[in-house]
Amino acid sequence: MQTKTPRNFFKALAVGAPKPYQELPTRLERMIHFFPPQIEKMRNKVPEMAKNVDVILGNLEDAIPADSKEAARAGLIEVAQSTDFGSTGLWVRINCLNSPWGLEDITELMNAIGDKLDVIMLPKVDGAWDVHYLDQLLAQLEARNNIKKPVLIHAILETAEGVKNVEDIAAASPRMHGMSLGPADLAASRGMKTTRVGGGHPFYGMLADPTADGADRAFFQQDPWHYTIAKMVDACMANGIKPFYGPFGDFSDNDACRAQFRNAFLLGCMGAWSLHPKQIEIAKEVFSPDPEEVVFAKRILEAMPDGTGAVMIDGKMQDDATWKQAKVIVDLAKLVDEKG
Amino acid sequence: MQTKTPRNFFKALAVGAPKPYQELPTRLERMIHFFPPQIEKMRNKVPEMAKNVDVILGNLEDAIPADSKEAARAGLIEVAQSTDFGSTGLWVRINCLNSPWGLEDITELMNAIGDKLDVIMLPKVDGAWDVHYLDQLLAQLEARNNIKKPVLIHAILETAEGVKNVEDIAAASPRMHGMSLGPADLAASRGMKTTRVGGGHPFYGMLADPTADGADRAFFQQDPWHYTIAKMVDACMANGIKPFYGPFGDFSDNDACRAQFRNAFLLGCMGAWSLHPKQIEIAKEVFSPDPEEVVFAKRILEAMPDGTGAVMIDGKMQDDATWKQAKVIVDLAKLVDEKG
Amino acid sequence: MQTKTPRNFFKALAVGAPKPYQELPTRLERMIHFFPPQIEKMRNKVPEMAKNVDVILGNLEDAIPADSKEAARAGLIEVAQSTDFGSTGLWVRINCLNSPWGLEDITELMNAIGDKLDVIMLPKVDGAWDVHYLDQLLAQLEARNNIKKPVLIHAILETAEGVKNVEDIAAASPRMHGMSLGPADLAASRGMKTTRVGGGHPFYGMLADPTADGADRAFFQQDPWHYTIAKMVDACMANGIKPFYGPFGDFSDNDACRAQFRNAFLLGCMGAWSLHPKQIEIAKEVFSPDPEEVVFAKRILEAMPDGTGAVMIDGKMQDDATWKQAKVIVDLAKLVDEKG
Amino acid sequence: MQTKTPRNFFKALAVGAPKPYQELPTRLERMIHFFPPQIEKMRNKVPEMAKNVDVILGNLEDAIPADSKEAARAGLIEVAQSTDFGSTGLWVRINCLNSPWGLEDITELMNAIGDKLDVIMLPKVDGAWDVHYLDQLLAQLEARNNIKKPVLIHAILETAEGVKNVEDIAAASPRMHGMSLGPADLAASRGMKTTRVGGGHPFYGMLADPTADGADRAFFQQDPWHYTIAKMVDACMANGIKPFYGPFGDFSDNDACRAQFRNAFLLGCMGAWSLHPKQIEIAKEVFSPDPEEVVFAKRILEAMPDGTGAVMIDGKMQDDATWKQAKVIVDLAKLVDEKG
Amino acid sequence: MQTKTPRNFFKALAVGAPKPYQELPTRLERMIHFFPPQIEKMRNKVPEMAKNVDVILGNLEDAIPADSKEAARAGLIEVAQSTDFGSTGLWVRINCLNSPWGLEDITELMNAIGDKLDVIMLPKVDGAWDVHYLDQLLAQLEARNNIKKPVLIHAILETAEGVKNVEDIAAASPRMHGMSLGPADLAASRGMKTTRVGGGHPFYGMLADPTADGADRAFFQQDPWHYTIAKMVDACMANGIKPFYGPFGDFSDNDACRAQFRNAFLLGCMGAWSLHPKQIEIAKEVFSPDPEEVVFAKRILEAMPDGTGAVMIDGKMQDDATWKQAKVIVDLAKLVDEKG
Amino acid sequence: MQTKTPRNFFKALAVGAPKPYQELPTRLERMIHFFPPQIEKMRNKVPEMAKNVDVILGNLEDAIPADSKEAARAGLIEVAQSTDFGSTGLWVRINCLNSPWGLEDITELMNAIGDKLDVIMLPKVDGAWDVHYLDQLLAQLEARNNIKKPVLIHAILETAEGVKNVEDIAAASPRMHGMSLGPADLAASRGMKTTRVGGGHPFYGMLADPTADGADRAFFQQDPWHYTIAKMVDACMANGIKPFYGPFGDFSDNDACRAQFRNAFLLGCMGAWSLHPKQIEIAKEVFSPDPEEVVFAKRILEAMPDGTGAVMIDGKMQDDATWKQAKVIVDLAKLVDEKG
Repeated sequence: MQTKTPRNFFKALAVGAPKPYQELPTRLERMIHFFPPQIEKMRNKVPEMAKNVDVILGNLEDAIPADSKEAARAGLIEVAQSTDFGSTGLWVRINCLNSPWGLEDITELMNAIGDKLDVIMLPKVDGAWDVHYLDQLLAQLEARNNIKKPVLIHAILETAEGVKNVEDIAAASPRMHGMSLGPADLAASRGMKTTRVGGGHPFYGMLADPTADGADRAFFQQDPWHYTIAKMVDACMANGIKPFYGPFGDFSDNDACRAQFRNAFLLGCMGAWSLHPKQIEIAKEVFSPDPEEVVFAKRILEAMPDGTGAVMIDGKMQDDATWKQAKVIVDLAKLVDEKG
Repeated sequence: MQTKTPRNFFKALAVGAPKPYQELPTRLERMIHFFPPQIEKMRNKVPEMAKNVDVILGNLEDAIPADSKEAARAGLIEVAQSTDFGSTGLWVRINCLNSPWGLEDITELMNAIGDKLDVIMLPKVDGAWDVHYLDQLLAQLEARNNIKKPVLIHAILETAEGVKNVEDIAAASPRMHGMSLGPADLAASRGMKTTRVGGGHPFYGMLADPTADGADRAFFQQDPWHYTIAKMVDACMANGIKPFYGPFGDFSDNDACRAQFRNAFLLGCMGAWSLHPKQIEIAKEVFSPDPEEVVFAKRILEAMPDGTGAVMIDGKMQDDATWKQAKVIVDLAKLVDEKG
Repeated sequence: MQTKTPRNFFKALAVGAPKPYQELPTRLERMIHFFPPQIEKMRNKVPEMAKNVDVILGNLEDAIPADSKEAARAGLIEVAQSTDFGSTGLWVRINCLNSPWGLEDITELMNAIGDKLDVIMLPKVDGAWDVHYLDQLLAQLEARNNIKKPVLIHAILETAEGVKNVEDIAAASPRMHGMSLGPADLAASRGMKTTRVGGGHPFYGMLADPTADGADRAFFQQDPWHYTIAKMVDACMANGIKPFYGPFGDFSDNDACRAQFRNAFLLGCMGAWSLHPKQIEIAKEVFSPDPEEVVFAKRILEAMPDGTGAVMIDGKMQDDATWKQAKVIVDLAKLVDEKG
Repeated sequence: MQTKTPRNFFKALAVGAPKPYQELPTRLERMIHFFPPQIEKMRNKVPEMAKNVDVILGNLEDAIPADSKEAARAGLIEVAQSTDFGSTGLWVRINCLNSPWGLEDITELMNAIGDKLDVIMLPKVDGAWDVHYLDQLLAQLEARNNIKKPVLIHAILETAEGVKNVEDIAAASPRMHGMSLGPADLAASRGMKTTRVGGGHPFYGMLADPTADGADRAFFQQDPWHYTIAKMVDACMANGIKPFYGPFGDFSDNDACRAQFRNAFLLGCMGAWSLHPKQIEIAKEVFSPDPEEVVFAKRILEAMPDGTGAVMIDGKMQDDATWKQAKVIVDLAKLVDEKG
Repeated sequence: MQTKTPRNFFKALAVGAPKPYQELPTRLERMIHFFPPQIEKMRNKVPEMAKNVDVILGNLEDAIPADSKEAARAGLIEVAQSTDFGSTGLWVRINCLNSPWGLEDITELMNAIGDKLDVIMLPKVDGAWDVHYLDQLLAQLEARNNIKKPVLIHAILETAEGVKNVEDIAAASPRMHGMSLGPADLAASRGMKTTRVGGGHPFYGMLADPTADGADRAFFQQDPWHYTIAKMVDACMANGIKPFYGPFGDFSDNDACRAQFRNAFLLGCMGAWSLHPKQIEIAKEVFSPDPEEVVFAKRILEAMPDGTGAVMIDGKMQDDATWKQAKVIVDLAKLVDEKG
Repeated sequence: MQTKTPRNFFKALAVGAPKPYQELPTRLERMIHFFPPQIEKMRNKVPEMAKNVDVILGNLEDAIPADSKEAARAGLIEVAQSTDFGSTGLWVRINCLNSPWGLEDITELMNAIGDKLDVIMLPKVDGAWDVHYLDQLLAQLEARNNIKKPVLIHAILETAEGVKNVEDIAAASPRMHGMSLGPADLAASRGMKTTRVGGGHPFYGMLADPTADGADRAFFQQDPWHYTIAKMVDACMANGIKPFYGPFGDFSDNDACRAQFRNAFLLGCMGAWSLHPKQIEIAKEVFSPDPEEVVFAKRILEAMPDGTGAVMIDGKMQDDATWKQAKVIVDLAKLVDEKG
């Protein structure tokens, strides 16, 4: 199938909608913290939580019972309208497009809090077509509500078809913010025989050859997510958008959570979901920028005060392109300093 | 870009939406007759008009002034609710997706008359992405409104990008009904230097070589739409959907209208728009099924009463496949008999 | 390259051939058990073996000597004609398309036992073109022999080019049943330096960093098949067909066989080959449906006796789609009960 | 869909089959003359006809009654075995792949006269898949019959889907010889409302604007095949294969036949079908190489006796590439001289 | 093959090269006037010619003898360095990439006059790969020579493969300015049997049916370039670049030249080549903007002085998008006023 | 995007350039040994080094300081002109195409030592476009310098976009020799959080489930390069070109280097880079052909002295295809014997 021509790719899809970003804004997003907005107690905690996390996400989809779907949506609107989120991102995970709630989730949220929402997380994205739908609808709702800043789309990669099409999904719209791996649904979609939400599985591993002495054979556990994360990272980075690990389900096992986050980090992910407050700190620990990189980035900015030209630092040429990368790192470091 | 896998192509896009057609239903659609629904006098004529045309279309887009857009939409709802259209198709041409009216056109019409609408005509389709949007949104609205029969999509081919992508557009959804050539907008989009709506142009033609005797050189007018119609017909027919010619703008020139319709008919189009009552008769004359074909089709049906097996008629083998084609022709002929 | 349009994808390729399946039938296929049909002793065991396995496959390709190729083909025909396989699948692995036996394998088997064959396993599939050939030829032979049920195609993924093109292979025909990883030939095709048939290799692993105390460094063996299986699973599941692990060559190492099957199972495979009777039990142990899943699936069927509507079970909505998945699981469980 | 990699494209598809041509051999093919091989009288004329035409084709498909299909096949085998065709090409038009005769046509002809057949004309090619089938089957039959020279494939372009996919068809195999436009079936497939076999239609044309004096308006007939032929020519020439016009049905109208052939010739076609002896002469007249081109080509060959280097002729540089083109033209001219 | 991701598409290809245009600058380019720079007399006329034409092009390729290639290149450098071209575009047609002169043409011109060249016309473009080469090389030469404004690429469409790939060529780089039809080489590449450079051919036409009275049958000449121009226009306009007709070879037939230019203009071309001074005036006459369009465009600019918002003019809504189109027309009209 | 048609793929891109290889020549390339040509002491060692390595590469890119870039290029030319490399390959790694040195690297080296260079290693290849540029430029420079043997291209895979497009890169030109994984830059491009140059990372691993006894949990290190190498190997092998591992950065850890090389070898790589003399021996040890394979290959050659026919060896059929593979292995073994 043909894609949009590059010149048309960056055009607004509705008269009056804001122009899409040619480069995504710099944001600190080490963890996307989920809360269930139908529960008043949780809503009340949001202003305080927002100070402690990089992104707070109102969850409307899985884990919200069917008879609380509308209460969750209303709760999110209420808390969004009454809270100042500062530099913390406000996201929502809407219900599936084929569910009875998907369309109203989008329209009601955009009508009520479209000017406060940063990112809509879209579950079960199978291909570019799902992004096309949301992209066009958001532009219409931005125009209707006179919203000045484009609301971005974050896809959850949680179907076999989605992984097959991940490069198309990443390239489907300038509104794409990034992607998260959704290991539970993906396992189900693929027929992977695990009910764990992320992490490894004790049965996936390599058995060493038998030894002459008949000793117990070593068993080396394997990473079931290597292919998926590596492919997702390439698709995202090639398109200038951000790859994320998703949820880690076992709240009682912080070490395994840390190991999983670190694996994702090492393969190129920029953050993860936190489904429990304990995971916030793990994410901060794992995903914060490397202090040495920050120091070096500051040296680049100092050496090129106006961002142009070329200088040698420690024998490596720095130019406009590396200046921009350095700027991103220094800006993130500032945000980390504010947030801790 | 990857397309949907064939098995997923035919799945409903929302829980509760009707299953898409694997084969489009047989309908007589020689002309799509436009009326402006904001005008009361025109609305009053609809019940009578509906008896005389194959398809009646409420036009909300071009030719409807901006300050009448909402009146037109409301007028269409009113007339649709109060009229029994019989076997006549009820279509609407909505406003562009990027316009201030596109989204409301879709949602309000589907909420109010989604069970009576047969086809939504979508203007300025540039690529599969525009169809993806409407396809998903219609499924959600069908589910919300408990609609039992899928509302189809008819694309207008009226941009250079759309013609480039016509094969993708035809294949973008099982909900695609067909396409119409939109010569006026297409001319503008391509920079074609004509303000005529369809038909030829006196300046597009071949000049014969000069003759020895210095006589006036012959000038042979050319068809500016040959490429576009031929490409559209192939894209539609390969995908099992229906190609149409669109509007002919000069109501004072019935002969040129007839010539244009006939050209489209000869290249494979199955109908055209009528913007004026006079064009209804021209379309009937041009696009009615050939009586000889009908006779032959009836012979096939008679020879294979249960639609299976293989028979020889006039030395040519007829089988299940030709039986189905014959059935379509005979069904159309019955509809013509009823309508005249 | 363009693919068939979705509407044409599901059409029969020969007049008189059965219509392709829009959804594959539910079959229990935990192991595909190979036997060499040129050996009389093995043929005599087939009726008994068939009661104990889910699929029995007559092998005509690798491991059958060139001078026994025709005897193997004849032997398979003989045993197929004289045996009632009950619900057990009858498959054949034919010789390569470019070999001196490929064409006769197909034509003679279809002529003689086309009505008993469930699946043809096609070796060394490089791209969609190989499937296109067999797809068309089978339709012609089905029509010629008046076969009422489509014979399916199962591709072996065993060339670098095949892995590159695995998504196209999965989508090449509605006749595709699934795919198996062929680790021995794939290793050769890729230049992987292993002569083992499946499983890991003692030299593929990560060496831990040295420790301060100079102790022996740990070595962590790695799965050489992770990429290939994960990519194959996504390609299959996105197209509604079934991924399989293939052979495990070391019959003396049941533990390593079990580990390999379990890895494949955890990544989404639905069965494996058994080349030795011992492997039948390993496959049954690994690939049988999870009893808890069966219990839950039965609850869904009970709650929705007619398969429509939506119910809440343990707080999760079940609908037509999950009903169908539940039906598949319950049907499989019944087959397991019969077979053990 | 992925195509074969270029290195694999030119490999033989069966052990023992001849290697595909990297460049097609030079052959004079101004007309492909059809005869019905089931008729003894026509068979008897073949040896004589063969001296007068460039290609003689035994027609097994349309126009051969169902009850004569096998007689036609047998008749072709008989005449092929008993005739020396000299430099005249021997072609066959087989029945459709989905018909009851397609497979036997291929296998029986290849088994009996595979070493004499130059080209198989394949009707109703919809996409690359049809060529993939025949390509692989021919290689197997060439190997089985120890045939030393690849039998080529000539596709008839006669469905809307085929025209949509014409570039893939041209690139589907090194065995592709070329393509012919099949105007009758293509018209039916597209829904073009003409029963003429090739040529124009009196109703497809442009009507001039009315004149002030009310005189009869001029009507300029249009070429309904312009798009199709131009697209086919580009697809063929870009792939190094040969485009042909197909049949002209009205044997009573030599002038219209000549006009149609000339149109095809002017757009790039290299030959046409002759269905009647009168059309042989028309094809010779229209498609013979231009004497001036032949003279110039001879000058190039004389100036570069060994085919290498670069010379200036009339101020234009000639090199290895133009030498090859010149060689083709001179070789054709020699064949014309022999044949007249 | 994958294309660049949209974000990467607009990046400069060398450190120090100017950033590519996201939107092409507005330029008046009704005719591209060719001159042979090796001839001193012609060089002397350039300053005067430049006042009278929109674009002046130094031709290095066809029509320049091999032994004058270097003199032509040097002559172009000399005249470019010594002339002030004002708002008139300075273009060059370089030799083919595979010729002995192509590389030096590019490097020497960029080194010497890269800051004065507006557009390089690239002959015989077969696919995106040819543009990729020149795109990267120009960026390196711009960086080396500190050029501040990107030199654009104009492709000549003159091979069957190029027409097949025209959409890719149009989308191959943000440096693409547009394309011209090259009818002479294209005819040769396709095997079209005409030696005319553009225009029709007396033998390409439709013969009317015979009449009952046996009168001479009418013959209606056809446009051999319809398919090619229409396809090229769509490819260009969809990518935001400019389509042109190329040369008309018969300088003695101004009327046929005018007819050909007008045909191209009516199909969407924005200019043509002038190979003779007489053709300059014909191009001006045909391709100048329509005065009525200019008047209307001015009304839009006046009604939206700051280019934002939405106003109704004659009942049609004008917005930011139409304002931009109006600005282009008014800017062109100013340039026409200056140039005449 | 369309690729070249297969027939055009193998054509020379400049008149006078050598014809591209249809099959790559057999070369022993177990290690590509890097040296910095700006250092006189290193240049003096080259003649001796060349006897001990399979490939010697003059490095102009990373690790060469900006102010030594020209000295490095000149040094490489000097040493290339004065050294006889025998059967040892002479390669160069040029600077990036977007750097200030890339173009001069190519042109100066081709002008001076184009007849001695075997392969140009191109860094940071993002897609086929980068290969298209170098492919065309090399052909022009080969023609200019009358070079008789095509200089090949070896791409470094070291960007996320490059990995995404690796199949296109492998297929971009017949001039492609192969690819190397560049783990350091690739890690940076992907945002992988490692500064190690190749090898694993102590933090990427699976944590075993906790045990009941609270013992230390096992941690299994994982291969971060599995996906990338496996995908690269498939892309290369499917296109008939050669995959390589690249650099291993920690010269103090020979065991880890050996483990990394062995992993690459097991996944299908044919060699690696040596950045330090110690790594030469490791590469020889790991990548030398297996003696048993050599023995078997010799048996094939002996059994088929003229390379045709089919013989049975140990019950497996050997034919023309396996003969060719055997010939490659025996030729390599001879080279190993000479080199040690």
